[in-house]
Amino acid sequence: MEWKIGVIGTGAIGRDHIRRLTNVVHGAKVVALSDIRPENAAGIAKEYGAVFYETGEEVIRDPNVDVILVASWDPTHAGYVLQCIRERKYVFCEKPLGVSAKECRNIIDAELQCGKRLVQVGFMRRYDRGYRALKEIIDSGKIGAPLMVHCCHRNRIPGPQHTTDMTIKNSGIHEIDVLRWLLGEEYETGQVLTVKQNRSAQDGLEDPQIMLLKTGSGVRIDAEINMNSHYGYDIQCEVVGEKGTARLPDPNTILLKTDGTRSCQIYSDWSERFIEAYDIELQQWIDSLNQGALQRPSAWDGYAACVTADTLIQARLKGTIEPVLIREKPAFYE
Amino acid sequence: MEWKIGVIGTGAIGRDHIRRLTNVVHGAKVVALSDIRPENAAGIAKEYGAVFYETGEEVIRDPNVDVILVASWDPTHAGYVLQCIRERKYVFCEKPLGVSAKECRNIIDAELQCGKRLVQVGFMRRYDRGYRALKEIIDSGKIGAPLMVHCCHRNRIPGPQHTTDMTIKNSGIHEIDVLRWLLGEEYETGQVLTVKQNRSAQDGLEDPQIMLLKTGSGVRIDAEINMNSHYGYDIQCEVVGEKGTARLPDPNTILLKTDGTRSCQIYSDWSERFIEAYDIELQQWIDSLNQGALQRPSAWDGYAACVTADTLIQARLKGTIEPVLIREKPAFYE
Amino acid sequence: MEWKIGVIGTGAIGRDHIRRLTNVVHGAKVVALSDIRPENAAGIAKEYGAVFYETGEEVIRDPNVDVILVASWDPTHAGYVLQCIRERKYVFCEKPLGVSAKECRNIIDAELQCGKRLVQVGFMRRYDRGYRALKEIIDSGKIGAPLMVHCCHRNRIPGPQHTTDMTIKNSGIHEIDVLRWLLGEEYETGQVLTVKQNRSAQDGLEDPQIMLLKTGSGVRIDAEINMNSHYGYDIQCEVVGEKGTARLPDPNTILLKTDGTRSCQIYSDWSERFIEAYDIELQQWIDSLNQGALQRPSAWDGYAACVTADTLIQARLKGTIEPVLIREKPAFYE
Amino acid sequence: MEWKIGVIGTGAIGRDHIRRLTNVVHGAKVVALSDIRPENAAGIAKEYGAVFYETGEEVIRDPNVDVILVASWDPTHAGYVLQCIRERKYVFCEKPLGVSAKECRNIIDAELQCGKRLVQVGFMRRYDRGYRALKEIIDSGKIGAPLMVHCCHRNRIPGPQHTTDMTIKNSGIHEIDVLRWLLGEEYETGQVLTVKQNRSAQDGLEDPQIMLLKTGSGVRIDAEINMNSHYGYDIQCEVVGEKGTARLPDPNTILLKTDGTRSCQIYSDWSERFIEAYDIELQQWIDSLNQGALQRPSAWDGYAACVTADTLIQARLKGTIEPVLIREKPAFYE
Repeated sequence: MEWKIGVIGTGAIGRDHIRRLTNVVHGAKVVALSDIRPENAAGIAKEYGAVFYETGEEVIRDPNVDVILVASWDPTHAGYVLQCIRERKYVFCEKPLGVSAKECRNIIDAELQCGKRLVQVGFMRRYDRGYRALKEIIDSGKIGAPLMVHCCHRNRIPGPQHTTDMTIKNSGIHEIDVLRWLLGEEYETGQVLTVKQNRSAQDGLEDPQIMLLKTGSGVRIDAEINMNSHYGYDIQCEVVGEKGTARLPDPNTILLKTDGTRSCQIYSDWSERFIEAYDIELQQWIDSLNQGALQRPSAWDGYAACVTADTLIQARLKGTIEPVLIREKPAFYE
Repeated sequence: MEWKIGVIGTGAIGRDHIRRLTNVVHGAKVVALSDIRPENAAGIAKEYGAVFYETGEEVIRDPNVDVILVASWDPTHAGYVLQCIRERKYVFCEKPLGVSAKECRNIIDAELQCGKRLVQVGFMRRYDRGYRALKEIIDSGKIGAPLMVHCCHRNRIPGPQHTTDMTIKNSGIHEIDVLRWLLGEEYETGQVLTVKQNRSAQDGLEDPQIMLLKTGSGVRIDAEINMNSHYGYDIQCEVVGEKGTARLPDPNTILLKTDGTRSCQIYSDWSERFIEAYDIELQQWIDSLNQGALQRPSAWDGYAACVTADTLIQARLKGTIEPVLIREKPAFYE
Repeated sequence: MEWKIGVIGTGAIGRDHIRRLTNVVHGAKVVALSDIRPENAAGIAKEYGAVFYETGEEVIRDPNVDVILVASWDPTHAGYVLQCIRERKYVFCEKPLGVSAKECRNIIDAELQCGKRLVQVGFMRRYDRGYRALKEIIDSGKIGAPLMVHCCHRNRIPGPQHTTDMTIKNSGIHEIDVLRWLLGEEYETGQVLTVKQNRSAQDGLEDPQIMLLKTGSGVRIDAEINMNSHYGYDIQCEVVGEKGTARLPDPNTILLKTDGTRSCQIYSDWSERFIEAYDIELQQWIDSLNQGALQRPSAWDGYAACVTADTLIQARLKGTIEPVLIREKPAFYE
Repeated sequence: MEWKIGVIGTGAIGRDHIRRLTNVVHGAKVVALSDIRPENAAGIAKEYGAVFYETGEEVIRDPNVDVILVASWDPTHAGYVLQCIRERKYVFCEKPLGVSAKECRNIIDAELQCGKRLVQVGFMRRYDRGYRALKEIIDSGKIGAPLMVHCCHRNRIPGPQHTTDMTIKNSGIHEIDVLRWLLGEEYETGQVLTVKQNRSAQDGLEDPQIMLLKTGSGVRIDAEINMNSHYGYDIQCEVVGEKGTARLPDPNTILLKTDGTRSCQIYSDWSERFIEAYDIELQQWIDSLNQGALQRPSAWDGYAACVTADTLIQARLKGTIEPVLIREKPAFYE
């Protein structure tokens, strides 16, 4: 069985997903697409033999389209997802699910009312082999119950439009999601530490930032989010348990000995670092459609991450420790 | 375009290739298969919707079969490959290409006469990301011209039928092939060092062995082939150049700190270690068929590896340093 | 020239220093000692050919004693140091210099009045090769200006008398001192995060704790102080600069491959980890006496560390972010 | 008790030993010295308050001199050592003990006749913490019986007078000695592989070389001796046992992340790498004099290393596998 997919948004990530669904993933075929830059999207449609539409709404309504992948501009995500739910079509929505807690709650309400899980959110780290191995170790009990997690999320340099809020809402949100999943619990409070600023950071950008989170059971997380590391794209995660620690592996690269040093290359960008995670993520999504049993991250996960990120942004602005106020989890999402 | 593939041999590796061609590789479909254990093969044929034949010859002749993958018992490889050449069908032959230099030469002669490259041999290490990165480093000149290569090929324990000759001919042959490719030259002499024997080795099995090879330009290779490491499946390769060294990375696994040690897991078996290389190998084979330009390893590579392995076995038996006598390379294989 | 040293306190660390001054350090001789357990001290005095006194006061007054090493019970440190200053004798005081900021201030006032630096405090990490190399890297500018420091101080298990305050005041104080020195500036605020408690921790002991410090220039420090790591004694320190990071090396131990793992041993205790730092510390102290130019850590460093630790303890009790109130640094201590 | 030491030879290593015996080692005092460059030696004598003699013979005969350290030009070692034995004075002789097997045999005969062990040879690697830990692991049985050892001895660049023979006789001899000690057995055969030459090697210098040794029990050693690694001074040693492997640790240096790489510094020279081993070596020598029980390496070890090196040089010249002909070990040296 081949799922006929409509893709909304053909920017960098959307285009890469089209390539992936076509050349890497089994059981999928991109049949329709749209983008706000029609000239660009029309060319891609032609290249992949897909129908080009002026609007995402048309993609969703096309009866030939079975399922939707949303990779458009962040503020448009929630609207498209809601339409998919109304049409009872499965939808894979790149993160974020919505730009506000309210948008996410609307999606949850719609999905609850629909009575069927349709939404998966694109937090790809849960599909990274390293994080999966880390979760296995935690769940095995080898290091005892987790007490603390130390994380770093370092970009070489930020994108040109990067803002202070995006550090948490677009970059740090990966830590927010993957640590909820690793630890299997929700956050209780959040705080953001002001840090000495990197003088090479863009005007007006507060960089780096340190996010502090405490989970319901008291696990403490510190996460450095550093957009101007300059040296590379580097993701670190160490879980400290009651009787040992486990650390995410670094990507394995050639060990060189030259000029007085032993050295290994560090990746410069997320697409190199997580390319395999994206491949696995979309393949497992298609497989889950075949089995009629959507995996996570669900709309609930998208909502929880959004609330947490917003709380951290408030905590940063106010310089306080803020409660993370997540509403009660419906049994539907267990 | 989807290539219709006939698979001969449905043992462990054959079966895994069928799964891979079906679920991982794009542009291929297994349409026919055979095995000497027909009851086993018939079930697999049913599972994958392929035609079952009693013999490999029938698979090759089936007009619905475009290309062949040979994964049968080693001594049958050459015969099937020759038949494929006669039928002018592309064939991917698991290593070894033949069990003797003569068999390999016959294949080369047939392919030369046919005038078109049809044969690819299954030395998958050339498709491993680590070895590819190592080759890039060498070719970049960062470590200068290679002078020496130190290798280890360690299995946890050998298979039940493993013999002293197989250590070189089935295990060490991977080093023989991949180092020819890394260095871009042929071997000139070979020697095998007798080593203190592991008392846990099976009766009559000489284990470990150390292969010594010298290339035409004088590069020295020492390769420990150790079937009873007991601790894991471990492949090491360090290239020493005129101004630096480069080392194959170890697979990246979680760093654990527990009970007074920092530790990482070592894989226990080749299928874990090289699964990705197999995936890339078959995908690139299919892609090369689409482009009408077969990649290597070619029949020539299968022949050169076979001659080298046989020379090393002779060198071991005689306790001498033996010349590796490879005939002149036809321009066809450049 | 050989300095005649009186040692006050012959518990574990005092006794080890006597051995060190006798067998490792050049230019020193232990000539007198005392301890509150006289039977123990008398035996040591006999073994090393030193005079035994009932009280530390007598050791300090002995005209044959040139310089003093204080390694007695923490609450007695300040009294002995003040007496040494009155006698104008050099004194090496094991940390802490005093158990309260007031005690430390009294020492500073006495030393200022005396007009000559006489006091060195035993923060040995500044003499560890790893930390020294880290400081060199920072000062070289290779990683740019420091922005953050991530630290871990993990003990296998705490001593039997360990209390919640001691986690900061006796263990974390090493981080407090060495980071002031690494960064070359004072702290501005402190905070302690409550963490999910290790169920194996002793009754009433809060463990682990996370200390947060901000320096005058805004550098952010997070330091996990974990008395029950169970796996070993493990000291980690990573400095994140504007263009790179530098990390304290782990002690180098044999790389073992056995039973499916690569592993290295982790030390179980601070005496193994820092034995060389203690040797260098005392040798350089003796050398500095010969040159008439005491090195640091000075009484000022002892005071600053004490104030910082007390501030953190208050911050922990109150759950607040507290200012670190250090008085203006006298030019005398520059 | 303080041993009064006469030092013969005040070149780089002799001068460093004088400093070490004076400032680092306990229980020793340099009281006399000589060198073939008298103006140099006279200055050093003055600096250290020692008597200067024109000849080594006078140093040995001086009744104020208890024990001798020989660090003169290699061809003079044996003569001085024989004179020490005649005078029944302990002597520490830098490697090599003699420049020929005959010289070494003469020393053994003299010491046997004297009936008391007086000679220790300066193979300092046995005192390196890494090699000691490696020996402990081997002896513990954790990796089973050793079967193979893979070694590298890499210099950044050779000294100006370096010759092809010296590669084995002065550099490789450290591997020859330390592996005999690690494995606890003698060598049976030796072979040297010709290797593609480093074009940056000095005219007439064959570099690198690979030494192959087989011990009496069949353990196989391959040792790359590479004088022009260009990247640094790098000593590697991996012991492969019946159930695991153990590898000498690399010196621990700061882990830097900058400019797209993780890197650690590699030492550039043996004096950095083995400075601590030299310190321990001479301290333990003095301690052994106090205990009246000389440690190893003995004259026998100096002899065995010399015969092995000469055998390898012959094997290289002839291109053959040569037996290592060591005479029967006298019970005196057990």
